[in-house]
Amino acid sequence: MKNLLSIKGIKLAACASGIKQANKQDLAIIELPPESHISAAFTQNTACAAPVEVARSHHSNTPSRLLVINSGNANAGTGKQGTDDTISYCKKASEVFSLKTEQVLPFSTGVIGELLPVERISDSFEQLKDNLHEDNWQNVAEAIMTTDTKPKGISKEITINGGESITITGIAKGAGMIQPNMATMLAFIATDIFINQDDLDKLLKTNINESFNCITVDGETSTNDACVLMSTSSSSHKFSVLNKQDKENFCCLLREVFIYLAKSIVRDGEGATKFITVEVQGAQSKEEAHTVAYSIANSPLVKTAFFAQDPNWGRILSAAGKTQYNMESLKIYVCDICVYDSLKPNTYNENDLKELMLKTDVIIRLDLGCGTNKVKIWTTDLSYDYIKINAEYRS
Amino acid sequence: MKNLLSIKGIKLAACASGIKQANKQDLAIIELPPESHISAAFTQNTACAAPVEVARSHHSNTPSRLLVINSGNANAGTGKQGTDDTISYCKKASEVFSLKTEQVLPFSTGVIGELLPVERISDSFEQLKDNLHEDNWQNVAEAIMTTDTKPKGISKEITINGGESITITGIAKGAGMIQPNMATMLAFIATDIFINQDDLDKLLKTNINESFNCITVDGETSTNDACVLMSTSSSSHKFSVLNKQDKENFCCLLREVFIYLAKSIVRDGEGATKFITVEVQGAQSKEEAHTVAYSIANSPLVKTAFFAQDPNWGRILSAAGKTQYNMESLKIYVCDICVYDSLKPNTYNENDLKELMLKTDVIIRLDLGCGTNKVKIWTTDLSYDYIKINAEYRS
Repeated sequence: MKNLLSIKGIKLAACASGIKQANKQDLAIIELPPESHISAAFTQNTACAAPVEVARSHHSNTPSRLLVINSGNANAGTGKQGTDDTISYCKKASEVFSLKTEQVLPFSTGVIGELLPVERISDSFEQLKDNLHEDNWQNVAEAIMTTDTKPKGISKEITINGGESITITGIAKGAGMIQPNMATMLAFIATDIFINQDDLDKLLKTNINESFNCITVDGETSTNDACVLMSTSSSSHKFSVLNKQDKENFCCLLREVFIYLAKSIVRDGEGATKFITVEVQGAQSKEEAHTVAYSIANSPLVKTAFFAQDPNWGRILSAAGKTQYNMESLKIYVCDICVYDSLKPNTYNENDLKELMLKTDVIIRLDLGCGTNKVKIWTTDLSYDYIKINAEYRS
Repeated sequence: MKNLLSIKGIKLAACASGIKQANKQDLAIIELPPESHISAAFTQNTACAAPVEVARSHHSNTPSRLLVINSGNANAGTGKQGTDDTISYCKKASEVFSLKTEQVLPFSTGVIGELLPVERISDSFEQLKDNLHEDNWQNVAEAIMTTDTKPKGISKEITINGGESITITGIAKGAGMIQPNMATMLAFIATDIFINQDDLDKLLKTNINESFNCITVDGETSTNDACVLMSTSSSSHKFSVLNKQDKENFCCLLREVFIYLAKSIVRDGEGATKFITVEVQGAQSKEEAHTVAYSIANSPLVKTAFFAQDPNWGRILSAAGKTQYNMESLKIYVCDICVYDSLKPNTYNENDLKELMLKTDVIIRLDLGCGTNKVKIWTTDLSYDYIKINAEYRS
């Protein structure tokens, strides 16, 4: 993880509340200054977790001021008790931080179907308040991990007219149960730019579609996915009056933060030994490109072939054809070598290709030859360790 | 595999033609008597194999008389050369067996993207003709295997009015790349009942939907799936004039043959240690039930949990909710123990449930509580051996 920059006015803290085993960081808070704007997207899984329902409701009512995030327990499938528990610790937090209950947004990640040790959470807020600091991004990135092997975070800075800079910092967690759907695993991205709610909402939507909605580890949409974009508006730079070039620069950096975090989740995918980019171009529609790309990115046969570093393009062809879109002009490239061209195998040196496949980062590219739409999806291979991690998750 | 009964008039043969390693059976033929009817369904994968295209075309033109089936090479992704090769050996077979080329139906299964050793196939027809026998079903079931660990076949007999009996015999292959879509892996089912083409086509369609279209190993739809139902009409019993009870009995047995073969494919699923039945009831539509059941049956997280014999129902809940259907009245049962009831965990003895999960055959049942539609889908767990088999497939 790169060095994380503070965002003026945003204070963070993390602690070991006792949800996970003793002394493991598992609870974090992010406090926003009063003038902040916040935009949030949540999972579309209809069996979504209690904190997702509560956060969605709180967020729609009142400007949010405090994010409470726990790992080790998803508080999903926990019914009315799960909702009551969530509201209970939000209420406690609001008392400690002198806010309204609706100004507190709860987020959880971890095992599904177990009740939260709600008192341990409530009892931790005083301690967390005492430890609030602007430079605690790294600690919070660590506290929200579950099967992640490393924390995920990034900062970007842009100087406007040689004057004061705008800063963007984002953190995320996620390694398994990854195929976000119009939302994402837990990700928290903040900037100090002065921006209105509408613009912030648009930026969140656009960037999610090009980052967290372009990744998959195992095709699973979590019950707890959430992505939050926050702005303190503490910078003197107003988004709405930035000149074209500055606005483009800012949007470009913000996009880089989203994509970096999304890719970090894939790179840390459960058991992953490869980072695979699936590019589909020449599609008649975005939807077609998406469907074909995800069919390949989620194919266990393609993923095991890449784990074996075997350029078995027949499985890519089969996964593409499974979508029932027209494959008559299809070209398939593996690591930029054309292996299949319009209904027949292409001649290539298999040893050269096997050599290229030894790299950690590999590219599968399909040209459907039917149109101008394209997408990029990022995924992992499927290894013994994915089975190991998920067979032993609760044991 | 049960003992397989002959169908009067249908002769079969198998040999080692040299497609696979030396001396492995890899080529089979099934010859039908002139008065036979044959109904066939093929994969809907748009990147379908050359033999699928040729068989589809031949089948629609002329009554089929000879099925040629090879394993070890799928002849898929092989373009015009693959089609030319297929027609070439169909022509050779038609000469040896004194038929029209269009009366020969080709079927292939095995690795994708390699050209067939077409001369080895053509050179084998004389030998195959010399070895034709009515009791060769077992040999053919073995010759069509790829990653299958055992041959799959079954016979059923029904006596009508205490007189002559009707016989049904079916064989199939398949272990990986299994989620047939309105078609199936290779399956060949024959009966001697006197039946017209329309009735035979209806029987094929109905039975496929309740058998091969209800299974998945890895969510992959093959380029080469095909299912063939044949009738020699050599029996004196006419399907169209059977009384209601006899017709029901015959249809019931035929259904049993389809389901037995479909289940055999799942039981032999690559790396499978469990046979999992996913039942979804209480759905508003068949489509809803299907979507929810397949979301669970293809979930790598559910499958690894069952491999670990861990009743981690949170993953079932998440896979159900991922479909975005209403889960507010959902009940989940694992091995008939209710683990989740309408938005909250149900109390149960986890040790009792773990004990039940040690069995090879386990049931996941969901009641969506929204309607009267239900489906059953059969699937496997996901084990280390699935990765091993598919990582080492071409090495």
